[in-house]
Amino acid sequence: MTVKTIGIIGGGQLGRMLAMAAAKLGLKTIVLEPQADCPAAQVANQQIIADYADPEALDALAAQCDVITYEFENVPVEAALALERKIAVYPPAKALEVSQDRLLEKQFLNANGIVTAPFRAVDSQEELEAALAEFGGQGVLKTRRFGYDGKGQQVYRKGDNAAGGYAALGSVPLILEGFIAFEREISIIAARTKDGEIACYDPAENVHRNGILHTSTLPATITLETAEAARLAATKLLSGLDYVGVVGIEFFLMQDGTLIANEMAPRVHNSGHWTEAACVISQFEQHIRAVAGLPLGACERHSDCVMTNLIGDDVLEMDTWLARPNVVVHLYGKAEARPGRKMGHVTELL
Amino acid sequence: MTVKTIGIIGGGQLGRMLAMAAAKLGLKTIVLEPQADCPAAQVANQQIIADYADPEALDALAAQCDVITYEFENVPVEAALALERKIAVYPPAKALEVSQDRLLEKQFLNANGIVTAPFRAVDSQEELEAALAEFGGQGVLKTRRFGYDGKGQQVYRKGDNAAGGYAALGSVPLILEGFIAFEREISIIAARTKDGEIACYDPAENVHRNGILHTSTLPATITLETAEAARLAATKLLSGLDYVGVVGIEFFLMQDGTLIANEMAPRVHNSGHWTEAACVISQFEQHIRAVAGLPLGACERHSDCVMTNLIGDDVLEMDTWLARPNVVVHLYGKAEARPGRKMGHVTELL
Repeated sequence: MTVKTIGIIGGGQLGRMLAMAAAKLGLKTIVLEPQADCPAAQVANQQIIADYADPEALDALAAQCDVITYEFENVPVEAALALERKIAVYPPAKALEVSQDRLLEKQFLNANGIVTAPFRAVDSQEELEAALAEFGGQGVLKTRRFGYDGKGQQVYRKGDNAAGGYAALGSVPLILEGFIAFEREISIIAARTKDGEIACYDPAENVHRNGILHTSTLPATITLETAEAARLAATKLLSGLDYVGVVGIEFFLMQDGTLIANEMAPRVHNSGHWTEAACVISQFEQHIRAVAGLPLGACERHSDCVMTNLIGDDVLEMDTWLARPNVVVHLYGKAEARPGRKMGHVTELL
Repeated sequence: MTVKTIGIIGGGQLGRMLAMAAAKLGLKTIVLEPQADCPAAQVANQQIIADYADPEALDALAAQCDVITYEFENVPVEAALALERKIAVYPPAKALEVSQDRLLEKQFLNANGIVTAPFRAVDSQEELEAALAEFGGQGVLKTRRFGYDGKGQQVYRKGDNAAGGYAALGSVPLILEGFIAFEREISIIAARTKDGEIACYDPAENVHRNGILHTSTLPATITLETAEAARLAATKLLSGLDYVGVVGIEFFLMQDGTLIANEMAPRVHNSGHWTEAACVISQFEQHIRAVAGLPLGACERHSDCVMTNLIGDDVLEMDTWLARPNVVVHLYGKAEARPGRKMGHVTELL
């Protein structure tokens, strides 16, 4: 069946850019998002205003679409599985399941031959202390799943007292990750079709500020071997999940050039925004092509570039960016520039 | 005042691509177009469903926008002038006036030092016969204005009988244009801001089929002098009209490399669609930047390319185009592929 209408769960900037890419291919989009006039709905054909997990809304979305995708990894797995019984959902629910749980994610990566930091599941105070002892008294304790009351993580260094550490993170399933003495961070954006065709963009080198991506630079300062290792990891991951769509994988780059996978996002990724400016086919169009059953486009990069995120008031410097030649500006149509809010990004071709 | 919302008169594919370019810059768009769910409205923030010249609809548009532009040159000059008393309208009404009347257009071009085919105003059968005599018995007789009952033009060759020729075209104001023995056709897309900043894309070489643009190829097979002459003509035209926005100018290329201006379009132009694939800033974004009072972007071309229009059933070959690497596909969201209807275009980077 030819795909004519794509349902997008989530109405933020990633949904917006997916909707625009779909429109360019003549495809219609319906966005499911509780916030009215969200960034994606402004450029989509239709919006269903409802919660992401609202069964009736999901039914209505499925009834009007030929395939469903999403712009974020917090779509409830149960909702995705329920949808999958009625309609194609890409990426598959399995990818959500793996990416929503840090333990499952690392286990899955390792099982597919992708190196991660050492880790231990921590389900009690006793297990925390045992795991810390194994890791020489240091590591990062994290909740396995996202969004547990905003309580995120706790760093332990040698000599720190771990007493009460399990309860402090909410007595929920946790994971202790060993420290990684990495040099820099890179990421790769890759896509896979239902038929198993895979295409990878060049790895980007990423710099974060306050826990948010600040810049992605192309090319990354890595050897050809390292770039090939990133591609190989992406290929293994995509095949292992029988994946359809675009994935973003972040890696730590070690001093010896080897890579340690940090995390995967089963969606278009902020560190791939540069592709809209420096490639023939952007990650957004690539994702739409994959989920719509169309052949993938070329991932070739015609220019070196630096993508810079505009967070909060950064957007006030827009005039400076617009005045620079060879800068592609992309704003998300958000009315208010709150601190920490992603307002847009710019890609300067070098 | 900072522009936040742009009104677009006309809801076809040009309006659609303008709306998408505006969204990328974080600007909102309202489309005025009588046909519901038109290509532009599918990606715009809002549509006013009304005739282009409906005074109430134009008032409503002006009340909600910061600036108004249009996607076609048939906007009634009176409507544009009425709007200009309330709100900035770019390109200016003067550009509409000139481009809607072949006689005024040629007079304006000549007055600004831009060479055209020889021409004579024809307002009677006597004037037709006198003009034909002057041009050696041959030329093309055209209505001065667009859309007179679809009666377009009449070619006269030596020995043809001109009797009844004036009445045959509707006894309306006509123009006789002398024949031009041109080699090929080129066009240039240029932009001007309110402050007089001008930027020109590289000239494209165009091939028409059945009176519709078929391909635009970059670079055109012309000398640097000819390219410079096209830029100079564009600069004169833009300055002469105190123009704001993007203009397209078509030229006949003579054997000696000189150019004869054929016509101008006060809008983004089909022969500039390649810019979205081969330039950092597309003609659509350039137009939005100009009318929104933002600085122009670079017109630099990073790749050679060929843009091919998809007319009617051409769109059925989409799978072939999608399967070719380095082809940027752009479809317009039109449901029905009628003969002669522009359904989309593809740009292959070379």
